[in-house]
Amino acid sequence: MDNLNLGRHISGQFNEDLERVINHVMHMGGLVEKQVSDALVAVAEGDEELARKVLKNDFQINSLEVSIDDECTRIIAKRQPAAGDLRLIMAIVKTIADLERIGDEAEKIANVALESLSGEYKDLLLNLENLGNRVIDFLRATLDAFTRMDAESALSVHKSDDKVDREYEALMRQLMTYMMEDPRSIPQVMSVIWSARALERIGDRCQNICEYIIYFVKGKDVRHLKAEDMDNI
Amino acid sequence: MDNLNLGRHISGQFNEDLERVINHVMHMGGLVEKQVSDALVAVAEGDEELARKVLKNDFQINSLEVSIDDECTRIIAKRQPAAGDLRLIMAIVKTIADLERIGDEAEKIANVALESLSGEYKDLLLNLENLGNRVIDFLRATLDAFTRMDAESALSVHKSDDKVDREYEALMRQLMTYMMEDPRSIPQVMSVIWSARALERIGDRCQNICEYIIYFVKGKDVRHLKAEDMDNI
Repeated sequence: MDNLNLGRHISGQFNEDLERVINHVMHMGGLVEKQVSDALVAVAEGDEELARKVLKNDFQINSLEVSIDDECTRIIAKRQPAAGDLRLIMAIVKTIADLERIGDEAEKIANVALESLSGEYKDLLLNLENLGNRVIDFLRATLDAFTRMDAESALSVHKSDDKVDREYEALMRQLMTYMMEDPRSIPQVMSVIWSARALERIGDRCQNICEYIIYFVKGKDVRHLKAEDMDNI
Repeated sequence: MDNLNLGRHISGQFNEDLERVINHVMHMGGLVEKQVSDALVAVAEGDEELARKVLKNDFQINSLEVSIDDECTRIIAKRQPAAGDLRLIMAIVKTIADLERIGDEAEKIANVALESLSGEYKDLLLNLENLGNRVIDFLRATLDAFTRMDAESALSVHKSDDKVDREYEALMRQLMTYMMEDPRSIPQVMSVIWSARALERIGDRCQNICEYIIYFVKGKDVRHLKAEDMDNI
């Protein structure tokens, strides 16, 4: 957490507040990552018990979002931070909103596991698993960049979302062909499509978090910039 | 804007800051509503020129999000607001993030218009139009509750998302049947499915905004509460 410059604050209490809230975000990130990977295992192995566990655990992520939000508002009111500190808190408020929604996407994937695909369509799941592994790596790299507040890593993670998108497009084309060749498969293929879509959206949310990290470190809002312009910040 | 109690602030400058930022949010909301309704007209009438206009205009919404965000951070740093005022600013920061994403959903719908459904499948669009009209009403009611910072309206709008969800589910069942009966239609039906999904997500984002309004007025975070518990706040 070098980039946080915790040492430079006059108030030790403020440092403690900041460190505590960042630890809570990291804890939330860890839970979200676990939810996504559990949901994917549940789908791949048709493990309904694990899927139900994912659905049951989502409330923990929701309540962490509410309590961290509250913590941030209290820090602003009490410590009246300026410049970089305020940017950090705003970045945290936005990050936890995206983390919470990644948790919601994990729920959607877990729901697919409960629809128990019949053996006939199990091969569809292999490619979903590949996309899932790529997205989990992406989420891990994002959380790692957040933990270190490392704008360079955030920028390179941000760019690698292209690969997730390409894999998603390829899977989608394959699923469409599958449905056209065997219309009976449509309801089951649609379940896989919703999971793939959820994974793609997790990738988008990770990109958002990377943008908040860059905003905090560079003091510059890079949302909606083209990839080539992001290199020049 | 009665609930904002603008009169009670000692600093006239702070009032002006708040009023200005709220006007900017309302302007952004108006643009977003226009984008969604233009996108729906473009799909219904196969108007490619209008669809391209929607895609071109999205940058305005994006830059409003960045500039309002910046305005809010500056107000916090300069005026160090507490309690209700700080809650209002946090609610605004969250609201504009959802408005920006509603703009992104409008873009997705406009893209469907560019895929120019062949005459054969035009009847699919009628039901999409019904869902679209319901969602536009929902968005308008949400923006209206925001303008008046009216928690009662926000709560009743929040509840009416059920109707959007039911209409979405019915349309989805119909589209699945359509694909199963005529597999040649799959690529075109999938375009309609993505539009329907975009509309359903706009409904979810309106619900989020209603929750921020209630949070501001009541000082209580109602995210993740069950519908029956929301009545008791």
